[in-house]
Amino acid sequence: MRIDKLAVVGVGLIGGSCALALKRAGVVGTIVGIGRTAANLDDALRLGIIDRARRLSEDWAGELRGADVVLVAAPVAQYAALFAAIGRAVGDDAVVTDAGSTKQDVIDAARTAFGAGFRRFVPAHPVAGAAHSGASAALATLYDGRTVITTPVAETDPEAVTRVNALWNACGARVVPMGPDEHDRIFATVSHLPHLLAFAYVDELAGRPEAEQMLAHAGTGFRDFTRIAAGSPEMWRDIALSNRTALQRELDDYRNALTRLTAALDARDGAALERIFARSRATRQAWESAYGDGGASEE
Amino acid sequence: MRIDKLAVVGVGLIGGSCALALKRAGVVGTIVGIGRTAANLDDALRLGIIDRARRLSEDWAGELRGADVVLVAAPVAQYAALFAAIGRAVGDDAVVTDAGSTKQDVIDAARTAFGAGFRRFVPAHPVAGAAHSGASAALATLYDGRTVITTPVAETDPEAVTRVNALWNACGARVVPMGPDEHDRIFATVSHLPHLLAFAYVDELAGRPEAEQMLAHAGTGFRDFTRIAAGSPEMWRDIALSNRTALQRELDDYRNALTRLTAALDARDGAALERIFARSRATRQAWESAYGDGGASEE
Repeated sequence: MRIDKLAVVGVGLIGGSCALALKRAGVVGTIVGIGRTAANLDDALRLGIIDRARRLSEDWAGELRGADVVLVAAPVAQYAALFAAIGRAVGDDAVVTDAGSTKQDVIDAARTAFGAGFRRFVPAHPVAGAAHSGASAALATLYDGRTVITTPVAETDPEAVTRVNALWNACGARVVPMGPDEHDRIFATVSHLPHLLAFAYVDELAGRPEAEQMLAHAGTGFRDFTRIAAGSPEMWRDIALSNRTALQRELDDYRNALTRLTAALDARDGAALERIFARSRATRQAWESAYGDGGASEE
Repeated sequence: MRIDKLAVVGVGLIGGSCALALKRAGVVGTIVGIGRTAANLDDALRLGIIDRARRLSEDWAGELRGADVVLVAAPVAQYAALFAAIGRAVGDDAVVTDAGSTKQDVIDAARTAFGAGFRRFVPAHPVAGAAHSGASAALATLYDGRTVITTPVAETDPEAVTRVNALWNACGARVVPMGPDEHDRIFATVSHLPHLLAFAYVDELAGRPEAEQMLAHAGTGFRDFTRIAAGSPEMWRDIALSNRTALQRELDDYRNALTRLTAALDARDGAALERIFARSRATRQAWESAYGDGGASEE
């Protein structure tokens, strides 16, 4: 596997770490970084993540000519506009891939924007993250041992899939193919719903007159439960809207679960409460034993 | 402050750590431990936490004669029976205090059981915890720098309050007095509700046919959000029932918050979602700055 020219659209933690990992593997020639802010692109140049930079407000599409791979690692809400510009500029042999946390809406946007070139688009979701964002947080080791989920569809060119698999393997990751609907359902359940639940909890608390006084008594349970309630509002707005259908189903199911719990409480049904808590505890403990190193991160 | 004889009813993490801290401070003579299981009492004797042990299935009330302080640190559901036995056996000068996570129901049970002796009962909640439970997890340092909330009522004897304050100060804790209703509302909000929300989430997920497959993709967000969903089912059943009224109000408010969030999602109202997420993030970040060492634990 050799990539003579790679274009990274969105040089943040995810795109920047991929660039560094490919340089570490020695499989990439020139890396062009394309992004919104000059400050972040300057960081990326200074840190040797990219070799050339172009801002989205400039004429950047010309930089895609001759690129073997274009990796889109920008916020998902920008995909439609980015895909349209990429579709016009990219060569027939190039492979386009992405790093979005949702896949069905990304596939819809790609199908619309790329036309015949849609077969060269490989939807992907590197399941990794860190506490900080931006090029300055990028790490060559971010994907070591992590999972990248790809969601190719019937039209997707197998050769393009092979190239994207090789790219992520070179970054140290293992690639798991999956249906896009399955992907979106799974991540709605294990990642997007908990984020929304934590956001709703802290926002509700924040709106109370006595919030300050209450927060002074919050302990380690609160700390852990609400850590994800400090995520990026823009990013989570985009994820919520992108994965709206799956999330609506999740929220319905969760509200039903709360209704059952409230009914047990109203009836002072200690046995019913204990059954709910005991199944939760057993499931959470089994998860901790199997995956408790917490390797993957959904952010 | 000097306690010649202390009786600890329930020699687990909370009661055992108090005993060790008082020994460390050199302010206590004999400590009698009273508990359910011989194995745990043997641990407590072997570790020097208590000097004598008596099982609840034996005639333990006689051990209370001559005690200056009786600390009840058993599960809250056992309080009514324990208080009745303590009320019959304890001397007029003794002070009885507790370590329960809820206070209004404890005060009701104490008022019923103690009669005239109720004025010598000081309701308290040491806000501390650890990952493990039982006498073997007890630490002399558990309360260093932590908060103990007391909720004396109009009838409570000020001298009894002074003695309990001195006891917890000797353990390294700071004592904060508060109304019992205020206590129960605050802990329903910052501790009991998040536990119930996390339990309901994991239990709902556990009930799905595809739970195994989904859990294989759960990451660090899931890990932190659900850590409290592995708490003791018995303990959380008791807390939920004890603080039922405050929790019902919390669950109502939370369900309204989820309704607002769902409405924003249904309307594809990105600005409304972003407002919810942004206020949550700002509140959570301010909390992290102010209290982020996570000193207190509500378990």
